[in-house]
This record gives sequence, C-alpha cells and structure tokens, in this order.
Amino acid sequence: MPHLRLALAQLNTTVGAVEANADAALEWCRAAARSGADLVLLPEMALTGYPVEDLALRTSFVDASVAAVGRLAERLETEGLGGLVVVVGHLDRAADRRPENKASVLHGGRVLAGYEKHHLPNYGVFDEYRYFRPGTEMLVVRVRGVDVALAICEDLWQDGGPVQAAAEAGAGLLAVVNASPYESAKDDVRLELVRRRAAEVGCPLAYVNLVGGQDELVFDGDSMVVAADGEVLARGPQFVESLVLADLELAAATATEVALPVGPSGMTVRRVLDLGPVSTPAATPPQPVETPMAERLDRLAEIHAALVLGLRDYCAKNGIRTVFLGLSGGIDSTLVASIACDALGAENVHGISNPGAWSSEHSRSDAAELARRTGLHFSTVEIAPMVDAFEAALELDGVAAENLQARVRAVIWMARSNQDGPSIVLACGNKTELAVGYSTIYGDAVGGFAPIKDVPKTLVWELARWRNEQAGRRGETPPVPEGTITKEPSAELRPGQRDTDTLPPYEVLDRVLESYVGTDTGLGEMVAAGFDAALVQRVVQMVDRAEYKRRQYPPGTKISFKAFGRDRRLPITNGWRETDPGRGGVSVSDVTDA
Amino acid sequence: MPHLRLALAQLNTTVGAVEANADAALEWCRAAARSGADLVLLPEMALTGYPVEDLALRTSFVDASVAAVGRLAERLETEGLGGLVVVVGHLDRAADRRPENKASVLHGGRVLAGYEKHHLPNYGVFDEYRYFRPGTEMLVVRVRGVDVALAICEDLWQDGGPVQAAAEAGAGLLAVVNASPYESAKDDVRLELVRRRAAEVGCPLAYVNLVGGQDELVFDGDSMVVAADGEVLARGPQFVESLVLADLELAAATATEVALPVGPSGMTVRRVLDLGPVSTPAATPPQPVETPMAERLDRLAEIHAALVLGLRDYCAKNGIRTVFLGLSGGIDSTLVASIACDALGAENVHGISNPGAWSSEHSRSDAAELARRTGLHFSTVEIAPMVDAFEAALELDGVAAENLQARVRAVIWMARSNQDGPSIVLACGNKTELAVGYSTIYGDAVGGFAPIKDVPKTLVWELARWRNEQAGRRGETPPVPEGTITKEPSAELRPGQRDTDTLPPYEVLDRVLESYVGTDTGLGEMVAAGFDAALVQRVVQMVDRAEYKRRQYPPGTKISFKAFGRDRRLPITNGWRETDPGRGGVSVSDVTDA
Repeated sequence: MPHLRLALAQLNTTVGAVEANADAALEWCRAAARSGADLVLLPEMALTGYPVEDLALRTSFVDASVAAVGRLAERLETEGLGGLVVVVGHLDRAADRRPENKASVLHGGRVLAGYEKHHLPNYGVFDEYRYFRPGTEMLVVRVRGVDVALAICEDLWQDGGPVQAAAEAGAGLLAVVNASPYESAKDDVRLELVRRRAAEVGCPLAYVNLVGGQDELVFDGDSMVVAADGEVLARGPQFVESLVLADLELAAATATEVALPVGPSGMTVRRVLDLGPVSTPAATPPQPVETPMAERLDRLAEIHAALVLGLRDYCAKNGIRTVFLGLSGGIDSTLVASIACDALGAENVHGISNPGAWSSEHSRSDAAELARRTGLHFSTVEIAPMVDAFEAALELDGVAAENLQARVRAVIWMARSNQDGPSIVLACGNKTELAVGYSTIYGDAVGGFAPIKDVPKTLVWELARWRNEQAGRRGETPPVPEGTITKEPSAELRPGQRDTDTLPPYEVLDRVLESYVGTDTGLGEMVAAGFDAALVQRVVQMVDRAEYKRRQYPPGTKISFKAFGRDRRLPITNGWRETDPGRGGVSVSDVTDA
Repeated sequence: MPHLRLALAQLNTTVGAVEANADAALEWCRAAARSGADLVLLPEMALTGYPVEDLALRTSFVDASVAAVGRLAERLETEGLGGLVVVVGHLDRAADRRPENKASVLHGGRVLAGYEKHHLPNYGVFDEYRYFRPGTEMLVVRVRGVDVALAICEDLWQDGGPVQAAAEAGAGLLAVVNASPYESAKDDVRLELVRRRAAEVGCPLAYVNLVGGQDELVFDGDSMVVAADGEVLARGPQFVESLVLADLELAAATATEVALPVGPSGMTVRRVLDLGPVSTPAATPPQPVETPMAERLDRLAEIHAALVLGLRDYCAKNGIRTVFLGLSGGIDSTLVASIACDALGAENVHGISNPGAWSSEHSRSDAAELARRTGLHFSTVEIAPMVDAFEAALELDGVAAENLQARVRAVIWMARSNQDGPSIVLACGNKTELAVGYSTIYGDAVGGFAPIKDVPKTLVWELARWRNEQAGRRGETPPVPEGTITKEPSAELRPGQRDTDTLPPYEVLDRVLESYVGTDTGLGEMVAAGFDAALVQRVVQMVDRAEYKRRQYPPGTKISFKAFGRDRRLPITNGWRETDPGRGGVSVSDVTDA
C-alpha cells in the first residue's frame, strides 16, 4: 500500500487580508515540508478568510485572490517546496465571471487543478448560494499512487453529490477543506458525520478546519483524520492554530480514465493522473511522525475558550488594543471583564464604576474587588451631576428616568474610550435580557462588541463559577467576587428594583427561550410540551416586542447557532403574534422605552 | 374573441398581519365584483406581507397563512362572490414541509389550484432561495375560455422557465403577481421588461404589485396591463392603493390537454380546463369600465413620495403616532422634519433645538423658522449644563469633546421620546455622511428610523428645493427656510468647523460614492474612468473604515437598490483595502471616534 504523509494546517485567517493570509499559508507549508509531508491541506477560503460576504462581488478582490493563489504556487517552487502537493481554499471566478468557492491544487510552481464547492449552504449564518456558482465536477488527484478526492465543507453535510462521486471514483482518500463555525456541542456531530462519510466512501477522510474569530463567528479548528472503519487516526486541538500530521497507508489507485461520465451522484469525475513527481526537500524520515490526539475540552471550558478567542480576534483583527466597560458589580459585566482580561491582558482593560442614586453599596465594593482580583484599570465616575443636569431641563419620571441613568453611563464610557483610545466599549448584555428586551437602547446596550450576547443568563453564572474553579485549580486568584455570583440580580435603576419584578426566574425563562428562539417552537407546541401557558404567553410577548432593539445590537461572539445575529432574520414591522395570531398588533413603541 | 374584465388590486399589506391582510383582500375583491370583474389579481404574498424572512420557518405562521387562504375562498363564496376567479399570493408549504412562495386560484368557495414561484431571487434585498422551495410546474387556468398562465415576480425577470412555459402552453393572458420594491428609475425598466415578456409569450401581460412601506423597503404599485405589441392598456398610480380595471379581448383557448410534457422551458404545464362557471353578482355591465392610465411622477416627486410613504407606513404599522427629532437648522434635519410633517402631520412631529457652545445664531433662528413654517411642535434645550457636568468629570478634548455634544443631544431626544411617547426618534443622517462615517455613533446617528439614510447629500438639497417649489405652486408656505438651503454645511461641534474641512465637496464626493458603493467599481477602474487618484483614494479609505458604524445604523427608507441596508453585506473585520490591496489594515478604532 502506498504511504502518504499528510499535514492539516488549521490556521487563523482574517477576511480580506489576502497577502497576510497567503504569507501564513506559506509559513505552514514550510513547516509541513520540514516534517516531511507529501500533501498539505489548508482550510476553505484560507487565502481570503471566511465569510467574505459582498467582497465576493468586488472584481478587484476576486482578482487579488486569483493572483494570490498563483503567486503562492510560485513562491513554493522558488523556495524548493514545489514538490509538495498543496490544497488551498480561495475565492475564484468561473468563465461566466460568477464567483466560486474553490479548492486549488498547487504543485511544481503551478495551480494544477481546482475543485468548485458543489453544495452551497444558505441557512443559518451561511449565504453561499447568494454569492457562488455551484461546481458540478468532482476532482481526483493522484498523489504518490493514491487517488485523493476533494470536497469543501457543506459537501460533506449533504447527501449525494461529492461524497457519492468520490465513492464512484474509487478514491483512496477524501480530503475535505472547511470553514465550519463553532457551535456548542457541534464537535460530536462533526465526528459522527466524518465517520459516516468515510464509511460511505470506503476510505479515510481528512478534515481540516479554520481557527479564529471573525466578527460574530468563531472557528474552532478540531481538524481530524478518520479511517473508513471510524477509527480516529489524528485529531487537532480546539481554538488554537496547529499543524496536524498523520502517516497513512492508503489503497493504491488503479483506474486509468481521466474522466468518468455522470454517475448516480450527478457529477462528472475528472482525474489528474500525473501531476509530476511528489517530493519533499528532506527525504521522507524513516521514523513515523507523532500524530496528535488532542483531548476534547469539556462543555464550559469549550464555551469559555470560544468567548475569549472571539473577543481577542475581534480586537486583534480590527487594530484595537484596549477596551472600556462599565462595571456594575453585577454578574454580566464581571464575566465580561474577566473574559476581556483573559483575551487581552488586564493591562488593556479599563473598568469604570458609575454609581447612581439607587446603586447599592455592594455594587461599588464588588466592582472594586473585581478590579483588585484581576488587576484591570479601575476608575469611578458618579453619575449624579450629569443626571441632575438632564433632569433639571427635562423633568423625567418612570422608565424615562431609569433609561436616563443608563444612557449617562454610556456617554461616559464612550467619552473615555474616545479620549483615551483607540479602543472600543464592550456591551455586557447577555442573551436572555437581549431576547426579552430587558436593557436600555443607547444605555447598557452601547458597545462595539458584545462578548456574551449569545450566552443565556443561567450560563453566565455557570461560566463565572467555572472560571473561579479553574483559577483555584491553578492556584490563581479567582476573578469573580463571591458576592457577585450569589446576590440577586438587579438593574438598580429605581429603589429596591429586582430583575424578577419584570422577568420570570431565569432558570424558567432560559428554558422557554431555548424552545421559542432556539428551536422556533410555536406557543401551542410549548404548552403541549408542558410549559405553563400564561408564562409562555408572557415570555413570547416580550420576545416578539424586542425585535427592534435586537436589530441595533452590536455584533458579538456566538457560541451557538440559533442566536440573534444574522441567522435570525425577522422583519421589524412584524404583525405576527404567536400570542394573538388573529389580530397581532405591532408595537415598536413598546420597546423604545427600554 | 372572449372578453375578460380584469381587476388588479394593488394593496398595502403588513408583514405578519395575516387576518388584517385577508380582510383587506376580501374588501378589494368586493370592490372588483361591484365593478363586474371576472378575474381579480392580488400581489405576491398579499396574505402574509413581503418579505416574511424567518417567519417562513415558523410552523405556526405557515399554518396561519394556509388557513387564511382557505378561509378567504369560503368567505368569498358566503358573500355570493364565489363566481369570481381570484389569484392571491401567500406563504404555503410543500409536501416535504419546505415553505413555498405561492399564488393560489380561488373559485367557488375553494382553493382550486396553486402555482409555486420558480425563479427565487437571492441577491440585493432578496433572500428567497434561503427560504423557499422552487416550483417546477406552470399553471394555466381557463377563465371564460381564455387560458390564463400564472407567474410570480422574479419569474418575469429571468429568461427561461415560466415565461417560456406560458408560451409553450399557448396562454391567452400571462398574469404576474409581484412584490417588487421601488428603486429610483426602476419604472421604465419594469415597463420595458413587461413589454418584452408580453411579446415573447405572444399575449397580453397583467402585472400587479404591492404598495406601501415595510421596514427599509417601499413598494410602489405601478400595476399595468400591456399588450403583446407593447401597447400599455392600463396603468395604476404609484405609491397609493388602487384597483386597476381593464376590459380585454383575448384569444380563445383551444388546447385540450390537462398536462404537457416538459418542453424547452424545463417545466411541465398543468391546465385547469373547467373551474366551473365564472360569474359576477351583477351581470357584466354593457359599458366598458374606465381604464386608468396614471401619469408617471417625475424623478424628484417619485423619490419624495417614496420617502414619505416609507416613514408613514413604518410608523403606522408599528403603532407609532409621534416622532421626535433634533433640529440643527441644517439641511438634513430640516428635510427630515418636512418629510415627517408630510407623512404624519405637523401635530405629530416634535422638533428639539439643542444649541451648544459652537452653534451659530442662524442654527437657532433657522430651526425656529422651520417650526413656524410647518407648524411642528418646537422646543429648545440648551446643552451647556449637561456638557459642563460631563466635562467636569472627564476632561475631554478633540474628537471626544465633539462627540460628547452630539451624544448629550441624543440623550435629550431619547428622554423626551420616552417621557412624552410612545414615539420614536428620527435619525437625520444622509447617505453620504453615513458612507464616509461623518457622524457620531450614539449621537446624531441615534434614532429608530432614518428617513434619508439612502439619500445622498446633493439629493437632499434637490429634494428640499423641489418641496419648496411644490408648496409655491400650490400657494402654500414653502417648509424649508431659504437660509437652510444656501448656507455652508457644518456640524458646529468646534469653532468655525465646516464639512469641507474633512470631506471633499459634496458634488464630487457623491459621484465617487455612486461609483464605489453604488456600482462596486474598483479603485483602479475609477481612476481609469477619469477620477482624481488622490481624491478617490481618500474617499475609498473613509468608506472602508465606516463599515462598522454602518452596521449599527437604524433602518430607514430606501430609494435605490445599492444602499447600506441588508443588501450591502460586508464583514466588519475586513482586511481588504482597495487603497492598499497588498497590506490592508483593519481599523474599527478609526471609526469608533466618530
């Protein structure tokens, strides 16, 4: 059986930074060559970053991507690495000038062949059918006597098409390049999928995925090689860049046709039989390489890592070094501050305490204690003088007066960020309060990035406790003051206010939201499933009314799929009411008063 | 030749308000019956409104739509209108439970047959491929001896498919139901398209379109009937609801097959030969009906009508009666105030003047003069006390101090809106300043709706002049003070500030933006087309950096397609720079200081 040394490069790219991405790709190819690899796989759209959205429609950008892939092939050759077979994802265009999501095969200083993604996802965070022309041809490249079939991400998730075509072609290895965003508990789904597809094709499957944050998305890596019998032959780490190496004994190819007619898969198969001698600068080392078998993170560690990487990369990729945030002493801003310290270093985090008329003593002391534990920059600005100045001119009461306090705080954060920046303000809203509209527009909702916008309130507490335990295990100071975790949540915008004055208990609320928002379950179905009818009615009404506020929310890290970013697209003017399907009224005005 | 009396009902629907939309549909059918119509066409998705976005994925919503169309058929029958043939657009589901964009034929108290949209647009503001299963079958219904073929909106814009299938079926009339949003200068494009398709099919084409504002979109009606030789037989008005009637002499159908095999169109044809007797409650009147031939509005009248309707419907459909806005005495807020008065009545418009340290005398007097001319509610709140209170605590200078003034104003507007509402604040930013980031986040960018967010600055002046001329022609007071139109634009956030300190002259800037943003033209191409290289470089840099701010901008009325709403989707973390394709840097921090 022919032997192939495979290198999966799970790297961190930046959308649009074509040359920087190409430099990184070259660097990983060098490392792969040093390890004696024959075949290097780089992720989907590695040269352009993912997702490029409307950049795909810009002629100059497509030109740059096409130029970059040719140049990468030339540079490899110039450095004596032309013998490597490199598969790299990038943006290209078809003869009719429509954009394509492509994986090109580089060898001998040239772009030898390319595979265009067949199944274009157009749901959730994906809009590929909007941009790309689907490919109709399977590409098989013979490398050291092994027929390597190519596929891109969604091609693996859909039945029929490329996976089937790879089987028809009798592939010895299915190489799949991916840009698959992190979802909580998605890893197991991916592994099972990869196992099933490897079995269907009857050969090992190599899966390489991006790493890193891109706006709302986080890519988690987790590249792997799985045998046809389901055995995991190699697995990369989560959330960090890595080169995953594997030595594979693969079936020798015997087919001689360069093209197969359309089979049951609906695709033609094109075969590159002779791409020239595959060689590596060093002779293939006699010793097998060490194949990584990274351990899976547990549930909370995984989510925490996604949040930290999402914030870190958003800042790094946007030229932001420091962040400002308001510290109320509550659990949300405390967790965000802790994540920010982990992501950027405490020296780059500025916490501002803004006590007001109804702030409790523990709000001040818990915020100061957080600063002491983490080492972040801490300052206090009382809001009374500004609030008084507004109230003298405006005579406010009720919700208007509550909102005013939140907005004065936001003006302070933005002013400090503008004055002492360049920086951004972090919004500390969680998924639960965002869903039900329990926040002030232009007040606590202010910020350029919302690290926990996809974290339900109950998970906020879980993560805070987990982070403290982690610190304890490492002999470090737990960042979150105990009082912050145990005290009853309150916005402290009026005397004696408690969240439960307005909201159901968070344990209950989060379960209803997971059903209504997370799985689009209707009111009737929820009641049938055992939820209290009045409670569900109340929550659904809040959610339906909060859509307007959600539309103005800043981007932030996602930890699951069904969140409130691009993937939940509801009209603002929306007369549909689950709670009154007959005569649903629309009312933005209900939510502009936050 | 058989005679058919046709009624095109261009009505104003609300997304989600299924029962209210069905009531309106019934009301228009009654009116059509009173006029002796045989065949009534209601627009695409008339029962659900358009676009429904993720509501299409909600089981309970699809159920409601399906129930509504059946109930409408029953109600027609109950009222003695079962003899009418009614074609109405709505959301449905296929056997595999995927949502469909459907036009159903109602007659005799039943839903007789349905046509599923074949070409699903997935560009610009459209995301239909994301939601709907495409249909593969052409439907032809014989009405009074005439074979009427059905199609939905995009089916008309794409070559092949339904138009071709209608020709293969030998249709005597092609009836197309639409939800086609307004774009400036789109009318002529539509008319030419309808003419071309009528010629291709070889029979008259009836085109019915929605009217009304839905979030960022405005539907303009402009329904029409065009003969095979291109003659316009009837045309409805723009931007108002209307029943367009036409008497048509059409070719008698002779075909007897109920199904045609797949032809060159790629679609099968299904024919309903006998739907039962078509009758109207009144005998068909001997006199021909009066067929409307609405005149086209000129360019500025059309745009102004779109802006007024967009704001009026956003408020009406969201339960908002009053609006608040800051009046600076400048052209942008003045035009918005004038549009708001036209849309909602001056009695529902609250203008607030917020003079600051650098406000000129004419800022105050022009704002007061605007109030006097229009009759809107006017008040003045000086910002000095609040600004002083912040500055005492924060010590700000430069851009941070400028932003502070803008944000204090926004807090005042929001507080007044919260206190005296329910209402929303209107954001007065125009397309030009939005594109280049010349505004303060959480300052002048604040608002629930931005009426002129798609109006370039030069067009703002044109519209202001046009509105004054209109008033003059009608013998009314021109709303816009002359000084507001003629004075040099300034943000007045520092002494002697002028827009041209930061921006190129607006005439030049708007031309560059039309090219770069409007048509996605690259920097090289723009320079080749004669633009000054340094100027283009400067503008493009500003636009690329302003993306972050744009993402947080509230929705507002669109007047053209390539705007900054959902249809321009760029990653925030975007390393691509036209001005430096090699090493594009990303820098959100450049724009958070507004």
